[in-house]
Amino acid sequence: MTADTPTGLTAFAALHHSGPPLLLPTAWDHASARLFAAQGFPAIGTTSLGVAAAAGLPDGTAATRDETLRLALALGAEPFLLSVDAEGGFADDPEEVAEFARELAVVGAAGINLEDGLGSPARHAEKIAAVKSAAPGLFVNARTDTYWLGDRDGEGTGRRLAAYVEAGADGVFVPGLSDPAGIAALVGNLGGVPLNILYAPHGPTVAHLADLGVRRISLGSLPYRRALGAAVEAVGEIRAGRVPQGAVPSYDEVRALAGRPVAG
Amino acid sequence: MTADTPTGLTAFAALHHSGPPLLLPTAWDHASARLFAAQGFPAIGTTSLGVAAAAGLPDGTAATRDETLRLALALGAEPFLLSVDAEGGFADDPEEVAEFARELAVVGAAGINLEDGLGSPARHAEKIAAVKSAAPGLFVNARTDTYWLGDRDGEGTGRRLAAYVEAGADGVFVPGLSDPAGIAALVGNLGGVPLNILYAPHGPTVAHLADLGVRRISLGSLPYRRALGAAVEAVGEIRAGRVPQGAVPSYDEVRALAGRPVAG
Repeated sequence: MTADTPTGLTAFAALHHSGPPLLLPTAWDHASARLFAAQGFPAIGTTSLGVAAAAGLPDGTAATRDETLRLALALGAEPFLLSVDAEGGFADDPEEVAEFARELAVVGAAGINLEDGLGSPARHAEKIAAVKSAAPGLFVNARTDTYWLGDRDGEGTGRRLAAYVEAGADGVFVPGLSDPAGIAALVGNLGGVPLNILYAPHGPTVAHLADLGVRRISLGSLPYRRALGAAVEAVGEIRAGRVPQGAVPSYDEVRALAGRPVAG
Repeated sequence: MTADTPTGLTAFAALHHSGPPLLLPTAWDHASARLFAAQGFPAIGTTSLGVAAAAGLPDGTAATRDETLRLALALGAEPFLLSVDAEGGFADDPEEVAEFARELAVVGAAGINLEDGLGSPARHAEKIAAVKSAAPGLFVNARTDTYWLGDRDGEGTGRRLAAYVEAGADGVFVPGLSDPAGIAALVGNLGGVPLNILYAPHGPTVAHLADLGVRRISLGSLPYRRALGAAVEAVGEIRAGRVPQGAVPSYDEVRALAGRPVAG
């Protein structure tokens, strides 16, 4: 779903600029996205790890372009805002990345995450500029992997983010950064560009991140990994003769999540 | 994975005829199947509800032939035995069902579930016969929905199962049956044909089902539904400022589940 607000910002962009920070649950399939939306979240993200692992493909290797587009196609018409985790855009060529982003926008996505994988910042900036040219209404969340992949050079992070904002990024994402002082310093240097932080169970809470000025909090692969962990727990309990614990939506509830008409 | 035993039974069929009953965890995607197999289960099933809901399609309406085959293709070469839940075979025509079963066997499935949906037992028997003709090594688990869909006419169940066994079914599956006396009576009437029961949290335990003579215990959509429930729980905990509880495989553990080579 995409929609414009009277301010000229898209509805999705507006969520990054006023009110409490955007808490973005991350789905790996159609049913998980529908269930998260039913909890009252206005926007839902996707997890590249979940999409890759579900298909038996490795994350972060540009192997899941088709699966990512297929999920966006299933979710783009739903009555929530959709942001798609697209690794590095599944191509080195900025025009190929732009074409993918255009396809996401056509099927109804409101945003895209593009990660630099610590590659050339100039090339990543070219991708961002190409995407903004091809799909101007798509919120581009530019991710840098300086913390995620272990290169904790704060100056490098700042230079990368400045280049991505200059290229047209609507927001920036620094997964792996969880130190409160570091987050506050980065917010201060961003001049109003919304900062996205990846929630970590042993990092700051959502309320603490809000106090630090973070504008978007993503859950990354955590919901999918917890889903897998809980399924394994349930199977183990049953094998041991115990009744599995925890919330279990009914067959009818899950079946009813499939609201799309069936072709034919 | 398919393999023959010295007795002439396939490895998957042999699991239905000796040792403890086959407890079959049911996966909805590649990663869940790999994780279940890592718990030591020799065989893994699939859940038609999970496959359908993941794709945003309704279960039980023959809408997920492609998704079902895609999952079998991802899992058929894995080092565990795979049984595929195929609704009614995704077609009314027995020859179309047989072609689907042949494709499953080609990609490495060891078994198939075929449900009658309370339709014509003669037509269902024709499907089973056609499948056994097209893919003789594929274990056909013939499911009747007399209990699942509410038609609790015990005599009808017996007549249907007899027709399916006569047509070549290797085992029979009566989801919804959880009354111990009814299960014991059915085992007594089946003359050695393995009976599959759907585990229910408030029905008999695995050990009790084993004592009753059940030879296969499926988990149906329960692991997938618990996965969804746990993901929603985790998101709710994070929103409330609490750390989510329960097992969570790491990013690296989940990423490593994708063992297939990437094309190109």
